Amino acid sequence: MDAVPRTALSRLPESGVDDLDALHSLLDEAKVGHIGLMADGFPVVIPTAIVRSGDTLLAHGSTGSRWMRPLADGADASVAVTLLDGIVLARSAFESNLHYRSAVLFGRFVALDGEAKSAGLDALIDGLVPGRSGEIRRSSKRELAATLVLELPIDRWSLKVSSSWPTDAQEDVVGDAWAGLIPARIEYGRPLTAPEVRDGIPIPDSATALGR
Amino acid sequence: MDAVPRTALSRLPESGVDDLDALHSLLDEAKVGHIGLMADGFPVVIPTAIVRSGDTLLAHGSTGSRWMRPLADGADASVAVTLLDGIVLARSAFESNLHYRSAVLFGRFVALDGEAKSAGLDALIDGLVPGRSGEIRRSSKRELAATLVLELPIDRWSLKVSSSWPTDAQEDVVGDAWAGLIPARIEYGRPLTAPEVRDGIPIPDSATALGR
Repeated sequence: MDAVPRTALSRLPESGVDDLDALHSLLDEAKVGHIGLMADGFPVVIPTAIVRSGDTLLAHGSTGSRWMRPLADGADASVAVTLLDGIVLARSAFESNLHYRSAVLFGRFVALDGEAKSAGLDALIDGLVPGRSGEIRRSSKRELAATLVLELPIDRWSLKVSSSWPTDAQEDVVGDAWAGLIPARIEYGRPLTAPEVRDGIPIPDSATALGR
Repeated sequence: MDAVPRTALSRLPESGVDDLDALHSLLDEAKVGHIGLMADGFPVVIPTAIVRSGDTLLAHGSTGSRWMRPLADGADASVAVTLLDGIVLARSAFESNLHYRSAVLFGRFVALDGEAKSAGLDALIDGLVPGRSGEIRRSSKRELAATLVLELPIDRWSLKVSSSWPTDAQEDVVGDAWAGLIPARIEYGRPLTAPEVRDGIPIPDSATALGR
């Protein structure tokens, strides 16, 4: 593991945050992560659903996935989890910026088996929609066999949070340009019922709680 | 460039889309990309603002950034650009899914200079907030010297789009579980004026157009 990169931030140290609660909060709010690894001799990035389970990060994929297989075999990996919180309109291009929270985790995944695998799948489902695993049937042996559930320890990471007003130089502040912030966030809409759902099956609490 | 991975999709071919307009639409809507590269012998992922300019993708960063520098030097790179469009609640964990659009671009960035660099910075600003570059002053020589503007040709890529209702087996459809979709999207809020903005400077059209 000597090759794990220094996670100390090389720039903008004021935005580096050494706060495990803030990291957990970001991982719990985000649904998607981006996994970086070497595959076929090239650095690739895999977008995938992620969920935190305690002090580990879970992801899953098909056993047939060409890019998930090396992860299950313990390839070096990074996982970036980013939420866009806004756009900062400064009075210059240089000071313009995004508001964001972004974590990068480093390490190696392990593939879960047996009970841990089933529990991991439940955690993945409940991470997307809290409470959902209790509303659906258990996975079959065939489904479990076709699925990789991968776990990464959350122990090497960096977290950057950008949440400031524009920091324009005074000579720009006294000028005529407006400056400010456009907030951004992921908005979940009202649940839509699939066409084949029989009459009388209500929208479950899990879906109404997430989709406002 | 022999090491560029096959961009043909290894799984779920029905979700692979060979449509340049759909790719451009995704790149134009997203504000953030995730760049994967090898740095210090480890596969890292850098979240960063991205914008499409014609048939290239632009990113920028500090000349002091440890992870942007190898990109400017032509390191192999992937860029993933993903938008979450919803959460699919199927009647089993196995069929549960996300609605998403996700592109991965492969290649090598080049650092822009001179006029192309200035134009690239304008494109980056206008990609975040259309029209914004015309409302702020030009970048100074010092600012330009401190900034890397990186360009990647959009010529090797894959695009996956997941936008279907749950595809549960008939034995699950006849069961008692609800199934459906929770739509998701990035919502931009009303522009907020920075504390130091003088009275009488109105919120510009660029900001009001984006922040509904």
